[in-house]
Amino acid sequence: MSLHPQTESILATLTLEQKASLLSGASFWDTEGIEDAGVPSIILSDGPHGVRRQSTGGDHLGLLDGEPATCFPPAVGLGSSWDPILVERVGEALGREAQAKRVSVLLGPGINIKRDPRCGRNFEYLSEDPLHAGVLGSAFVRGVQSQGVGTSLKHYAANNQETDRLRVSAEIDTRTLRELYLPAFRRVVTETQPWTVMCSYNRVNGVYASEHNWLLNTVLRDEWGFEGVVVSDWGAVRDRVPALAAGLDLEMPSTNGRTDADVVAAVNDGSLDIAVVDTAARRLIDLALHGRDGLWADAELDVPGQHALAREIAGRSIVLLRNEGDILPLTPGAGSLAVIGEFARTPRYQGAGSSQIVPTRLDNALDEIRAQAGADVPYAAGFTLEGDEDAALADEAVRVASAAETVLYFMGLPSSAESEGFDRDDIELPAAQTALLERLLAVNPRIIVVLSNGAVVRVSDWNERVPALVEGWLLGQAGGGAIADVLFGVVNPSGRLTESIPERLQDVPAFTSFPGEHGSVRYAEGLYVGYRHYDTREAAVTYPFGFGLSYTSFAYDHPVARVEGETVRVSVHVTNTGARDGREVVQVYSGLPGAEVSRPVHELRAFASVEIPAGETREVELSFPVAGLAYFSTIADVWSVEGGTYVIEIAASSRDIRAHLDIQVAGDPSPIPLSVNSTLGEWFAHPVGAPILNAAFAQVLAEAPAVGGMLNDPHLRKMAEQMPMSQMVAFGALSPEQAQGLVSAVEQASA
Amino acid sequence: MSLHPQTESILATLTLEQKASLLSGASFWDTEGIEDAGVPSIILSDGPHGVRRQSTGGDHLGLLDGEPATCFPPAVGLGSSWDPILVERVGEALGREAQAKRVSVLLGPGINIKRDPRCGRNFEYLSEDPLHAGVLGSAFVRGVQSQGVGTSLKHYAANNQETDRLRVSAEIDTRTLRELYLPAFRRVVTETQPWTVMCSYNRVNGVYASEHNWLLNTVLRDEWGFEGVVVSDWGAVRDRVPALAAGLDLEMPSTNGRTDADVVAAVNDGSLDIAVVDTAARRLIDLALHGRDGLWADAELDVPGQHALAREIAGRSIVLLRNEGDILPLTPGAGSLAVIGEFARTPRYQGAGSSQIVPTRLDNALDEIRAQAGADVPYAAGFTLEGDEDAALADEAVRVASAAETVLYFMGLPSSAESEGFDRDDIELPAAQTALLERLLAVNPRIIVVLSNGAVVRVSDWNERVPALVEGWLLGQAGGGAIADVLFGVVNPSGRLTESIPERLQDVPAFTSFPGEHGSVRYAEGLYVGYRHYDTREAAVTYPFGFGLSYTSFAYDHPVARVEGETVRVSVHVTNTGARDGREVVQVYSGLPGAEVSRPVHELRAFASVEIPAGETREVELSFPVAGLAYFSTIADVWSVEGGTYVIEIAASSRDIRAHLDIQVAGDPSPIPLSVNSTLGEWFAHPVGAPILNAAFAQVLAEAPAVGGMLNDPHLRKMAEQMPMSQMVAFGALSPEQAQGLVSAVEQASA
Repeated sequence: MSLHPQTESILATLTLEQKASLLSGASFWDTEGIEDAGVPSIILSDGPHGVRRQSTGGDHLGLLDGEPATCFPPAVGLGSSWDPILVERVGEALGREAQAKRVSVLLGPGINIKRDPRCGRNFEYLSEDPLHAGVLGSAFVRGVQSQGVGTSLKHYAANNQETDRLRVSAEIDTRTLRELYLPAFRRVVTETQPWTVMCSYNRVNGVYASEHNWLLNTVLRDEWGFEGVVVSDWGAVRDRVPALAAGLDLEMPSTNGRTDADVVAAVNDGSLDIAVVDTAARRLIDLALHGRDGLWADAELDVPGQHALAREIAGRSIVLLRNEGDILPLTPGAGSLAVIGEFARTPRYQGAGSSQIVPTRLDNALDEIRAQAGADVPYAAGFTLEGDEDAALADEAVRVASAAETVLYFMGLPSSAESEGFDRDDIELPAAQTALLERLLAVNPRIIVVLSNGAVVRVSDWNERVPALVEGWLLGQAGGGAIADVLFGVVNPSGRLTESIPERLQDVPAFTSFPGEHGSVRYAEGLYVGYRHYDTREAAVTYPFGFGLSYTSFAYDHPVARVEGETVRVSVHVTNTGARDGREVVQVYSGLPGAEVSRPVHELRAFASVEIPAGETREVELSFPVAGLAYFSTIADVWSVEGGTYVIEIAASSRDIRAHLDIQVAGDPSPIPLSVNSTLGEWFAHPVGAPILNAAFAQVLAEAPAVGGMLNDPHLRKMAEQMPMSQMVAFGALSPEQAQGLVSAVEQASA
Repeated sequence: MSLHPQTESILATLTLEQKASLLSGASFWDTEGIEDAGVPSIILSDGPHGVRRQSTGGDHLGLLDGEPATCFPPAVGLGSSWDPILVERVGEALGREAQAKRVSVLLGPGINIKRDPRCGRNFEYLSEDPLHAGVLGSAFVRGVQSQGVGTSLKHYAANNQETDRLRVSAEIDTRTLRELYLPAFRRVVTETQPWTVMCSYNRVNGVYASEHNWLLNTVLRDEWGFEGVVVSDWGAVRDRVPALAAGLDLEMPSTNGRTDADVVAAVNDGSLDIAVVDTAARRLIDLALHGRDGLWADAELDVPGQHALAREIAGRSIVLLRNEGDILPLTPGAGSLAVIGEFARTPRYQGAGSSQIVPTRLDNALDEIRAQAGADVPYAAGFTLEGDEDAALADEAVRVASAAETVLYFMGLPSSAESEGFDRDDIELPAAQTALLERLLAVNPRIIVVLSNGAVVRVSDWNERVPALVEGWLLGQAGGGAIADVLFGVVNPSGRLTESIPERLQDVPAFTSFPGEHGSVRYAEGLYVGYRHYDTREAAVTYPFGFGLSYTSFAYDHPVARVEGETVRVSVHVTNTGARDGREVVQVYSGLPGAEVSRPVHELRAFASVEIPAGETREVELSFPVAGLAYFSTIADVWSVEGGTYVIEIAASSRDIRAHLDIQVAGDPSPIPLSVNSTLGEWFAHPVGAPILNAAFAQVLAEAPAVGGMLNDPHLRKMAEQMPMSQMVAFGALSPEQAQGLVSAVEQASA
């Protein structure tokens, strides 16, 4: 988005007070405009999976109902598609809907990493993997912004829990921050330039995100080249002046001028540079002008069209986890069905909190199943959404189930269990539902379980006893129809897990450190989140990252991986070996056995969702930059690609590797220069340092035979190689001058 | 140890140069003396499990053989006794031996926590638990120092690996440092005042231990009251002047005056306060005078007496892990035996590195078994200590094993596998030995495995297929006899594990962070080391912490736990219900369900090794201070006992809890004062703050109904309780003045 032609001239006409006023909201959802100067006010509105326009200007906390809007599947469903083309279409649809509601900036996508399944807002996030979240996040932004509507990439950064989210400091080591929590943001910013980025409430290593100069200026703007506006999450500004200085442009919502006055005072007393205000005001004016210009003259909401799209998307969001004996898909009219579970009638289709949409329509699975079944389908609620066990409901369900050939049992989490604003304490389904499952199994083992949940639930103690398990996540307003489509095979399921399903909460890597305490949470597990943990430790999971079944099957042939210049290219032939058209998600992981730094055994590097008609073959080509193999060197503060033989895996999930291929990567020079603090082992391993040290030692050893003896004895050499050169000085084997001379010699030879 | 009467007067006579010279070694093992001034030179000598006196003055690296000395079981064995009385006797014996060798300071005990089984020096350390290491470390110091010989408590601090030990920075969060890595040091220092403490080579959070003012002055001296000398590990001083300023008194070994000159120069140019030199010199003179005065006029080494003691101690160090069908103890003469394994003939009895002793005698298990068997015992080596599989040796072993009724198979780690100076890459036994075990099992399932190893090895894939497993660790020079004593029931085994035996290396908490990289190791697992990890996560282990079998059995009755003033008192009646006299190790753990900070599910608080004749009952009384229940509040930088209902477990291992008892603990006031950064939830939970806030809200809510609505809705209240008071200000629900007024009101009410 290039600078609007009017931006600079408008800026030049404004007083300090006017500039300051632009940099906080006019109301809960509107930016400040200055009509005389030509700065329009634009409307921001909650997202991400629907346009939650509150026409009355918003309640005090912005939590009450908005105007009806299409409720698309939240990110937990959408992400399961693994399909950027699909996500971009959702973005386009949301952009159109924003146009119809005169909204200039949709507050999404949310791309925080699902660090722990207990996070109450996981339903709004895409993935436990930053590549996946970044690719789909980019697609979302591209889609929305193609319609002349802006986005707000959120929540930047390290907002991975709701507990104490307004204050908690996410304590993350630099490598983990760089390699796991920032890359999705980097990808979306560099690929798509979202109009705005929303800073999170929390602190990162002690500093509020809204006041984090390193995050907002150094990384986001200087390193990644972000050109847009940084907007605060609503109420995330603690201290306006330092926030502005740190790169926070727009405080939302309005503070009725209170903090604007702080800004003016700070400029006047010299504690804040006017240039900071000018820069932020320039960005804000530019955003407002583009926002105004982007709005269409007229736009109407196509309710049935959007609903149909929501159903298609929901169909792509469902993950088939288990299907023993091909019990699914169901054949209409063949065998009697019964539906059990309140969720079939009262769908849980979105999460609670700021993203909550009043839908334009709302389908439920029960009606849709009945419509497709071609026969009567008895129903029993079985349990209440919020209640404890209800014996009458459960008895009725057992009765209904025992009379049917096949039971569709809808289990799930009630909306009170997961929400923006708090986290779960466990990953259990309500006891009333699992108790009922046991009773149902006792009378009818042909049970197909359909789940409704915004984040992972534990299924380990019963999933192998039901023939089929359909993970329905939260599917938006048309999810009921999508579930029926999948159950009856109208849609061949192609969703894949974006989070590992653990055997037990105790197996989750952050089990002992989430959600922290006393205003602080230590990201103890570091890089080892999700499959990075389970796969590296070869630990059991119930269902792995990237997993999902289809009604057809796929064979992989002719796998190839090669380095071409700065790119790793991978290709494979995938054949649909079954009788139905289907869609496969081909995944590429890389690993570096024996890496010099601790690394996950493998990490996702590329993926593609490919539609393949029955019996046909597609050549799938994927690529990623060699630079994507880098780790972040904390000591040198740079990304570095270690040279060596990388394993490229072509896979159908993180645990279903169809081909292992080796590639040779030259790598970058070591990011850590040799010094007197380098160990002898590091010297001996260094291409320039080794000959210099050996030559020097030939001389020294004549004078210090004990050191010579040490280097010639394999056992002692192992110890000696650990010695920093400075230690040789401490032991008198080298003089300080000799050591410094060796370092200088290496510097000269490398220059 | 009170100040020696001559110390001050001698100090007053010394020049700056003389003082500086006292503060580094005269040679590899001797301190500098100044004869004219009356400062004696004293001898320091490696330990801990024997007095390794190098009479020739030490080689360049201090690694060559010393004079023959009694080799007692290294810490890995000694610690398994769980018996401070026994350890104190070993200390006394070592003190006598030091006297015989004119050694004034024995360099031990080593009490670092076994963070990871791969640490090459684990054989020199006591435990994965700080209480256990501290109690036994204190006993060791008491024993040695009772003989007029000093000790050196080492390696202070956070020296938990050998990889890069001369440089690596142990990156540990404050709570973990305080609660896991420092408590053993604190206990030994406060209980016993070791003459010296040895600083480690490594860095702690970026600062060399030798230059760590916080560790050496703030914590060790100011908080714990350490009165002795801080000595460097040999060669651990990088920069003498800042080290001296940070509290490092004595640099070892000699630097031939080089760094003394640095000290003199720094005082002369004003960069080092002479008071620092005086203080360190005073400590050093005092140490030297006490060291000289402590030496006996004459002392002789009682070789047979010490050897007999070494055998007794070794017998107490053995841990019986498995004994199906009471195959052990063996009855002399009943059934034919065969011994397999090179370790039976060539014992691995100590670890490699600076602690290595040239023993006065060396027993082997084969001779001792033959002596007690009352029959011929065929033997086959089966494998070589260092070699790959040897088919001829293995074939011979299979032949011997197939002809015997019962096979004693001695497996273990060769000394090249574990040593000071490097870490292991895995926890596997050599493949040749496990391959032979499979062959032996095929011909004779009655196999009793005896292990020789300095740290944990994986036994998970075969231990359930052998009827008996004896963990022999490293047992010192008389271990061969001790093994025979246990096998034939002369000694009833009573050792207990001081480290959990994991199923696989991948299960070890530090699997992905040990040993770090590029000069840094992040203690990612935090507090969750050993059983703190496995038990909190209910993760499988092969054998748990505190576990060990006996040839008899014990029943626990009448468990009692109560708080008496500042002490938690626990008692239980333990009955020896079998036919043999035996020894039980009663363990007390505590836990706090629902603790406000992340805590291990339970932690060891007290233990006792109790001898109980067959058929008899002993009342075992244990106690620990209520203050021992504290966690360390990082935010307030104080220890704090949370009030609540603690579970007290009386146990035979960390997984064999014989009684659960609740105690009520009042606890300390919250260490974190209420402020505008406190959440509403914290205000509502605070005894003083809650009524003040409620009164204020009654007023405010009338003006801000949205906030009132929020607090009355259970779902929204859950979100509101997470809001810091400052957020209420940001949303305009409170003025900054109102918020500050509430804080002031609480301060006044609390004052």
